[in-house]
Amino acid sequence: MFKGPLGDSIVGKAVDKGLLDINITNFRDFSTNKHNNVDDYPFGGGAGMLLQPQPIFDALSHVEQKAAEQGIGRGKVILLDPAGKTFNQSEAEKLSKEDHLTFICGHYEGYDERIKELVTDEYSLGDFVLTGGELPAMVMIDSTVRLLSGVLGNKESAPGDSYSSGLLEYPQYTRPADFRGRKVPDVLISGNHQKIDLWRQKEALRKTYIRRPDLINHDRLTSTQKHLLADVRIEEENNK
Amino acid sequence: MFKGPLGDSIVGKAVDKGLLDINITNFRDFSTNKHNNVDDYPFGGGAGMLLQPQPIFDALSHVEQKAAEQGIGRGKVILLDPAGKTFNQSEAEKLSKEDHLTFICGHYEGYDERIKELVTDEYSLGDFVLTGGELPAMVMIDSTVRLLSGVLGNKESAPGDSYSSGLLEYPQYTRPADFRGRKVPDVLISGNHQKIDLWRQKEALRKTYIRRPDLINHDRLTSTQKHLLADVRIEEENNK
Repeated sequence: MFKGPLGDSIVGKAVDKGLLDINITNFRDFSTNKHNNVDDYPFGGGAGMLLQPQPIFDALSHVEQKAAEQGIGRGKVILLDPAGKTFNQSEAEKLSKEDHLTFICGHYEGYDERIKELVTDEYSLGDFVLTGGELPAMVMIDSTVRLLSGVLGNKESAPGDSYSSGLLEYPQYTRPADFRGRKVPDVLISGNHQKIDLWRQKEALRKTYIRRPDLINHDRLTSTQKHLLADVRIEEENNK
Repeated sequence: MFKGPLGDSIVGKAVDKGLLDINITNFRDFSTNKHNNVDDYPFGGGAGMLLQPQPIFDALSHVEQKAAEQGIGRGKVILLDPAGKTFNQSEAEKLSKEDHLTFICGHYEGYDERIKELVTDEYSLGDFVLTGGELPAMVMIDSTVRLLSGVLGNKESAPGDSYSSGLLEYPQYTRPADFRGRKVPDVLISGNHQKIDLWRQKEALRKTYIRRPDLINHDRLTSTQKHLLADVRIEEENNK
């Protein structure tokens, strides 16, 4: 599951450049059960299977020991859980400053509650149910790794990344200037950089105002942005 | 990128069972550019590259035509975008009722705005930046496919899925009853199913009360749950 998304991607390139290491540990290899099972029925009854504590405790000890041999601490041990704090850009920034992150990923089973003793941070991507922790772990890894120094080149860096600037992105256009009758806004091919900049600020404010007004922090707006936002408000009111 | 997560998973098993089809279309194959490029610099300047409209328009026409040959409509065309509506369980339920979903996934480039003309629904997983649309598309596919009839067996169905019941899950335990000194709560091995049920309802309410009080909808609580929640409140107040 991890090979494709973490290999054929910015994350894979970052690993190739030696900017980080990714190790996958299969906790099934640590089962002491004679059938290599890692799950069992819940005490008290109910549907579904639960991951037993032993394989995960022992797999994590192994991970910690291997890290210690390289002089790396235990770091954060992350569980993806619907009850966890919501992952967002500021959490990604925090995690990008850590030396060592371990993600515990179950696959369609629940967890024995005692596993949580190992966990330093519980995260949730959002209010939806998934069949396993692998995909959300990869989402978190992708979002965190792209913040590491040297990972994104100029080519990859998204212009005016949403959330970093606090506003959504302005609309962008590339060639051709006329695609089957759909034209690029004149201002963008005017060559007037001051006008282009104002148009972009205004359209970023417009999109944020319409779709995510909660992201607009008035204290962080420049006086130009405040004027542009006032114009946007009037225009959008008249458009209704 | 898609092979591992969509193959070695519940989604892969559902495809094997014939419950759905997944087709990957590489819009690079539709480039009419002599170097097979699909991106170009933004009009008006700025860092980063943008996906051009032509390869995506033509790839989508191809997808629609192939679907039409099988009697399947255009369906929803989904773009993962930070400005999109937040994906959640009720959106997954809506999408699971559709016949045909197309996800447009860019990889570290932005989009030419004209692409949005093709899009019926824009979604965001949350307030964080990713290097591409593939991982969030797979998250949405996983969450949606697991709701299709026949996809989850009894073994896979997570007991008392969060968000479906409206509450977070109660703590669960499996064997051994005593793991290196960490014991399972007595009530769960008591064999008294009424007590077990009350304990579980109470602990689900406790976890939700502490971590996600916004999920508690008082109108949906039974009178037993209301009493249990009152007890939880008193206990947690005394614990502070």
